[in-house]
Formats: sequence, C-alpha cells, structure tokens
Amino acid sequence: MASAETKTWEGKTMAELFPEEKDAWRGYIEWEKYPERKAIASKILNTHKFSLPPEFQFAPIPDTNPVLIGHRWKEYHEALGISGLVDYSWETVQREKPDLIHLLDFPYNGETTRPQLLQDKITSNMHHFVRNHGGVPDIDADAFELEIGGLVNKPVKISLKDLQDPAKFPQSEVTVTLQCSGTRRIEQIHDYPGDGDELINAPWGEGAIGTAVYRGVGLKKVLKIACGGILPEAEHLEFIGADTYFKKNNVFNYAVSVPYRKVRQNEEVLLAWEMNGEPLPKIHGYPLRLVVAGYIGARSCKWVYRINALKEPSMGPVQAQEYLYYSFQVGKQNAKYSNGFSIQAMPVSSAIIAPIEKDVIVHNGSIEVKGWAYSGGGNWVERVEVSPDGGHEWYQVDPENMTEKHYYAWRLWKIDLPLDAEGWIELAVRTWDSSNNTQPTYVRSAWNWDLHVTSSAHRLKIYSINMSRPATRERLELIKKHGGTGFTPLSQPLEFTLEEEETYLAAVRKHPREPKN
Amino acid sequence: MASAETKTWEGKTMAELFPEEKDAWRGYIEWEKYPERKAIASKILNTHKFSLPPEFQFAPIPDTNPVLIGHRWKEYHEALGISGLVDYSWETVQREKPDLIHLLDFPYNGETTRPQLLQDKITSNMHHFVRNHGGVPDIDADAFELEIGGLVNKPVKISLKDLQDPAKFPQSEVTVTLQCSGTRRIEQIHDYPGDGDELINAPWGEGAIGTAVYRGVGLKKVLKIACGGILPEAEHLEFIGADTYFKKNNVFNYAVSVPYRKVRQNEEVLLAWEMNGEPLPKIHGYPLRLVVAGYIGARSCKWVYRINALKEPSMGPVQAQEYLYYSFQVGKQNAKYSNGFSIQAMPVSSAIIAPIEKDVIVHNGSIEVKGWAYSGGGNWVERVEVSPDGGHEWYQVDPENMTEKHYYAWRLWKIDLPLDAEGWIELAVRTWDSSNNTQPTYVRSAWNWDLHVTSSAHRLKIYSINMSRPATRERLELIKKHGGTGFTPLSQPLEFTLEEEETYLAAVRKHPREPKN
Repeated sequence: MASAETKTWEGKTMAELFPEEKDAWRGYIEWEKYPERKAIASKILNTHKFSLPPEFQFAPIPDTNPVLIGHRWKEYHEALGISGLVDYSWETVQREKPDLIHLLDFPYNGETTRPQLLQDKITSNMHHFVRNHGGVPDIDADAFELEIGGLVNKPVKISLKDLQDPAKFPQSEVTVTLQCSGTRRIEQIHDYPGDGDELINAPWGEGAIGTAVYRGVGLKKVLKIACGGILPEAEHLEFIGADTYFKKNNVFNYAVSVPYRKVRQNEEVLLAWEMNGEPLPKIHGYPLRLVVAGYIGARSCKWVYRINALKEPSMGPVQAQEYLYYSFQVGKQNAKYSNGFSIQAMPVSSAIIAPIEKDVIVHNGSIEVKGWAYSGGGNWVERVEVSPDGGHEWYQVDPENMTEKHYYAWRLWKIDLPLDAEGWIELAVRTWDSSNNTQPTYVRSAWNWDLHVTSSAHRLKIYSINMSRPATRERLELIKKHGGTGFTPLSQPLEFTLEEEETYLAAVRKHPREPKN
Repeated sequence: MASAETKTWEGKTMAELFPEEKDAWRGYIEWEKYPERKAIASKILNTHKFSLPPEFQFAPIPDTNPVLIGHRWKEYHEALGISGLVDYSWETVQREKPDLIHLLDFPYNGETTRPQLLQDKITSNMHHFVRNHGGVPDIDADAFELEIGGLVNKPVKISLKDLQDPAKFPQSEVTVTLQCSGTRRIEQIHDYPGDGDELINAPWGEGAIGTAVYRGVGLKKVLKIACGGILPEAEHLEFIGADTYFKKNNVFNYAVSVPYRKVRQNEEVLLAWEMNGEPLPKIHGYPLRLVVAGYIGARSCKWVYRINALKEPSMGPVQAQEYLYYSFQVGKQNAKYSNGFSIQAMPVSSAIIAPIEKDVIVHNGSIEVKGWAYSGGGNWVERVEVSPDGGHEWYQVDPENMTEKHYYAWRLWKIDLPLDAEGWIELAVRTWDSSNNTQPTYVRSAWNWDLHVTSSAHRLKIYSINMSRPATRERLELIKKHGGTGFTPLSQPLEFTLEEEETYLAAVRKHPREPKN
C-alpha cells in the first residue's frame, strides 16, 4: 500500500493534497472550506472501484466480533492516502471500548452488551455505545478552539479554555440518554430487509442506547454571550465535526443541524466536555461535542469545531440524505431524500433485556423481566407495561421498580411477571410517555426503508417450564434419576422412555382414540 | 470398523446373532418374532454411547446437501454389524432419487424441490419425496410373500404372484397424495423449536408431499377373499415392514396400524406394487407397500411382509410413541405418549410454491402465485384463496386454474393476484375443503411439541415493485442510465444520488419540515 507521502495524483502527494489543517489536531482534514480540495478528492475516488458493503440482510449476520468489516470505507481512506485515520480509530476502540460488541470495525459502531446495559441507570464510559461516521481525530485540548459563524450577530472563535471558564459561561450538568436511530434495527432486518447504505445500516440490537451525565455549557448561552445572539432569519444551527465523511464518491466533514427553536427552548442542548465526571473519551468526541437531549444521537456532533447559524437545515449528507424516516411504500424503487422525514426527536420505545430470545426458563409461576424504557420528544417515561401473552394482557411495572424520572433519560425497570402457561410464550413490553404516547404494535407497523426507529412493542419468545405443575416436577425428578440435570438442551431427546407401557395402556384404554360407535 | 463377520458378542459374530431372515430378502432382519434377539441387541446397544442428533433448531440449518447427517442411526447399525443397510440405502438414493433435497442422508429423508413440485399434478417417481425410518431392504419379487394373521378367520401367506393375479384379486388404480406430517415443519422450527427426536424431526419445507397413481388390490378385498374376513373383536390392522427401526436402544421392525373401519369404508387402502405405471421403486417399498389414502404417510407401510388384525392399535413405537399431536402446553417438561393424539387422517392445508420467501418481484399490478392444496380426512379440496395483504382480503383461485378434483389427491393451483402496494408484502394462502374446513391463521395457532402437521395458512413475504407507478418507472430508467439492470440486490445501495440538489430543495422548501409558527 502506498503511503500518503508516496502516493501521488497529478504530481502531488496525497499528503500535499489532503493535509491536516492544524497542528495538534491530528486526523482533522478540512474539506468544507476548500471546494477545490473536495473536487480533487472526488476525482480520485471516481477512478476507483470500491468493495460493496457487506451483505447481512438476505444472508445471516456473522457471529464474529467484529461482526462486520468496513472494507469499503477503509478503501475510501486508502484511496486518499488517509488510512492513518483508520488505524488510529481502531487503536482507540481497543483502548476505550474493549468490551463492546464491535458491530462494525470502521467507521466504528459498538454496541453495549445486555449485562452492561442493566448495570446502572448511568452507563459507564467504557460501556456506552458508539456510532461513529468516520475516523477518530486526535485533538489536543490546549490547541482546541470553536468557531461560531453564519447568521450570528458576531462571529467568534472561542478557545476551549475560555469555554470552560465558569466566569465566562455558566456550566450545567444534565443526565441524557443518547440513542442511535438504528436501535433494535435487527428486528426489521430479520424479516423485512431494507436500505443497504454504503455506510452500512448496522444490525443493532437493544444496546444502541446509553445514558450519561454530561457537563458543559448550554449552547443557547454561548450564542447569546459570545455572539450576541443570532440574526432573526437564522432558523437552524449547523454543527461541523472534525471527522471525515464519504457519500457517493464525495468527501465532507461531518455536518448536521438542529432547529434553533430546539436550542432556544431547551437548556439540555449542551456543548459538553465531560462525561460522567471524566473528560470525554476520544471516541465520544474529545475535547468537545454537542449533546442534543431527546434527539437522535446523530445530531450530538462529536469533535465539533464549527457552528453555523443558517436559514435552512444543513445540506451535509448526514442531515439531508441520511436518517430519514420514509413512509410505508417507499423503498429502493422510489426513495428520494425529499420524501423522507428527517429524524430529530425520538419516539417512545423500550426493550426487554432479560430474558433473551429463546431462553428456556424454569420458574414457579412468575419470572423476572428487565429492560429499559425511553422517550425522546420532550416527554419522559411515565409507565411501563409487560405482557406474558404477546400483548393481550399487560402488567404495569411498579414505579418502585423503575429508576427515577428524568426529562431526557431512560428508566430501567424490572417486574416479577406472573406466568402460568408452559411452552413457547411471547413476552412484550410497551412504554407510555408523559404525553400518553405508546408504541406501535408490531415491527411491521413501523417498518421503513432505512430501518430507523424500531419503536414497536419489543417482543421475544421464551420457553416456559412451570415447576408449580406436578407433571413438570415429576419429569424433572425422572431426568435426575437418569443422571440428567434439567430440561436443556430443549431440542435434544430424553434418553429414557416418556411413559411405561402399563401406564400408557391404562391411559389409552380409558380414553381410546376412536369412538365406540 | 469390524464387520458383521468379525465383530462378536459373547462368542458369536453379529452375522450369527442378527442374520437375514430369508434368502433373496437382503437386508431384512426379523425382530418381532424373536424377543431374545431383540434383548441381545438392546444389551449391545446399551454398551454404546451414541452421537447426539444434530442440532438445527437453535442453530442454523446447514445449507449443505445432504442437509443433515444421520450419525446416530448409522452408529446404531454399526453397533449391530448391520451397516450394509446404510450403504445399500445410500446407493439406492443415488440411483433412484439423485435430484431431491437430501434432508437427512440416513435414514433417508428426501424433499421434492419447488420446480419438481409444480411440474405436474402427478409427481414423477424420481421426484416424489421419501421419508424412510430405516435402511432400504432389497427384496426379490419372486421370493416375496405376504403373511396375514392375528384376529382373522384364516391366517394366510400369499405370494406376490398370487396377489397380482387379477383372477384372484380385483385390481384398482387410485390417485393418492401422500404427505409426511412434517411438511412445512421448518416454519415451526424457525420460531418455536420443538422435539429433537433421536430419529430427527427433519426440517421439511413445502415438498414433503407428492401425488402418484398406485395400482394394487384393495386391502379390504384381500382380507375378505384370502382370510374369510376378520374376527368381530378385531378393530385395528397392524402393518409390519422389512425395515429395521430403533428407539431408545431397542430394535424393531417398522410397525404401524390403522383402524379397520378405515379399511372397511375405503377402497383407497391398497396393497400396491405399481407407482405411476412402473414397479414400485426400491426406496418406495418394492415389491409391496400399503397406500392408505388420506392418512399421514407413515401408515403407508413400505416393504410390508406381515399384516396382523388386532384388538388394539399397534404397540410399535412408530405407532404408539411417534406421530403424536400434542396439545399446546405439552413439551419436554411433561410430554407422555398417552397425552398425544395419534395422527392418522390429515387436515386441510396448502402451500405457496412460487414465488418464494423474500423474492423481489417487479410487476405491473398483479403477480402470478402458484402452489398446492390438499385435504386428507375424507374431504377433497374445494376452494383455494390467496391474500396479498397477510390475510385481510382473499382472492379465490378460479377453478379453471386448479387441477381436477380427486377424493384423495391435492390440487395444484395458480392465480394472477392483483397487487398494487409496493414494498414488503405478506402473501398468504388458505384452502377450504368439502366439509368447509379451512386452515388455522398462524403457525403459532397450531404449534405442537412434535412439530407435526404445520397446517396454518402458508405465509411468505415478497418485495413488491409496481412498474405501473411513474416514480418506479423513473427510478428504473435512472438505474439503466447508470449502467445497472434492475433493483436487485435489493439491500445494496444505488451508486448515484437519489435526488439532485435542485429538486430536493424545491421539494423541502414547498413542504418544510418544521411548522412556521
């Protein structure tokens, strides 16, 4: 592989064409300021044929870890001589996130495991999920500054040091659940495959969600204090991150936007540098990121170095072309960016974290069920209900068994669920939020081509074995008498006869199969 | 591996202990007449530890062919020095059934492929499914004789030659669909794993069913003419086959029974030697088998050499311990043979054979759907209905597009199904029989621990692309302009932008995301 120093294009090395923008901001290449640089990169990319994204929707999802390999995105970086980003990102994963489910190695998508999810209301920094869109830049806090421009009264550059000075900007701490809109996507993929985006719509389970306490300054305050407010015509705020993003052979800095109204109304839109009492991990945006409470995680721009006040939403592809919620009959045959609804606030949703699909559960008439519940759109979680019969009857979780309410955070819950029936049982959970919204009934009810926001009642099947029943107790004794320990593996036969000839004959003679006449 | 001649047990070779019973009946070992022989075999088997059946319910079903390997059953044969049966069976498969899906190599389970199923109302001998329970014996027709005994007026032995003499027994030909009760089991396995029988409840799809014209003599006639009828107390007829069957370290000849009432009432219970105008294939029971029309295939005993009239049903394990339909809450924790209902007559059922699950179908407002429909319990197929929306609306198949009615055979059908909606569509089919029975709604509606008789409305998902819609036509033109051919693979991204900036901005400015006030 040619390096950035030796690989050339029209007489220039890649290192000359695509240099790092600032000292001590390693891995940050500025694209948005230099249209000509973008044009050259696009020309170079168009001379390549890249690997297709991995197929995992019509084929089984690999049971490896990492689950998926981002060959295509690595090749994009290689083509521009910036593979150092790929290497540094993976080193960062190994240092900061060694225990996650590595759903995609690059750009890194890491999912929190079930035991980690249930550990505490606050997810530890090491276990919090990550959904990155490019490589991890390596920026020195001392050299960091944030630019704010566009439709503001006074464009400014603020050093991180000034931003962190409580005498200049009042600080706040908020407890926020961030969620990837891909959470529980695996349920849609399983039955109804959808968009195979080049950045890979990863097959997330229930762990693309996490909660942390962030410290920083409210963006509203910064705009007011530092910039003297925004101009009347500004309606959106664009956030630009130091990571590099690719879309259909074009290259960008990561850019998204949120309506100014959201920032104006909510103290909980933060410029944050601290996560759970520690500096932001590199992989979570060190030294500075946005935290947009209640919104899809994608808006909480990491490594943010520029904010623009705009009349209209950002035209960055992550904003204009991704994270769109398409209606039911839209798919590959007719999807356009303008017929999707840009996902900002997240709906009410929930998940059962224990037990798991196809568990065999031996119990005495009730089972413990645990999980999370969340609502993003300005509503908090008010009520959680669990069903032991696929959603016909529901049992409310006792508020004593839920973590405390927050405006912008999930609640963990558990319930001792009465369960009499044996065999395959469908558990379901649904959450009601403070506006009395609840979840759609089935995965299919909320299917959409990009497979975002799998917000339907979460369902899973378990095999119930109720020891309060005499026949079941007798069978267990018999298994033990024959040297076995229990009922699993469920689909392996018992080695002994299920019934002696004598009792069999007595039973079938008492109730013969055929009528007498 | 020691051979039957060298392998010994208490000073005797296996060939001495378990000899073939008759000359020119290769592979036929008599067990039922010799309780001591069975006892020795059982002792030998108990000294072994056999492989577990393959796990394919909680693990993915292999995509190999053969799909599953019958290690455990091969080891049973090896332990008794009768592995020759295993080898001859596989040779027979390769000669007589080279093109099936070999679901289990031994004992042989072979499934008819979809194109073979739809070829004709009559399934060809080469393509008819096979579900054997032991090795294939190799019997000379000239040496063959059938014994009839038990509660009959006159026990007899009849040579095949006499049985085939039209002057002695009137012959008949019947068109019969035989079906394994495992048909469509894969749908139950997929979501609700069940019994992992040591003989392997194989993961059959829609092809464990086939139709043939059988020639032979009615069993009712044979009992009357040859035996002078049965005794008044006889209520069941037991059929014993020349194949060897294992169950929990005991060994048997294959034995099943049907109520005498069934034989008395139905001309269509045949002793058959011809299948579709040819001698029975070896693998289908040559030289003589039962054909019990309307019943589960298991009662149509192959290589039948003995018939016993009995007061009660056969105690053979295939009859008393297998093919039981358990009720909903019965499973590994409480199943007993006596709490299952012995499956004899088969219910109304059907399957969609084309298209197949997750097909992407480009059409102009309607699609062709094809399949089979069957009812076993003395009823014929009267009506078939297909749904394009998961079972909310149903379209009746035109009788012109169904094969002709038979009392005991399926009907193949096809329909040009109106389909407007795009995206993932759930097709469903249901059949109504001549008693106005129809099928349960969901797989779960009829789940049972042994995973038999998957008779629910057959459902599958396809991705519908309707070319009568302008946006879809435009997208196809765009794909072709960029050198593509069509919409597949569905889950791979389009390489070009889905919308130019100009039209995007025009659309989102006309209908902005946020309200004005």
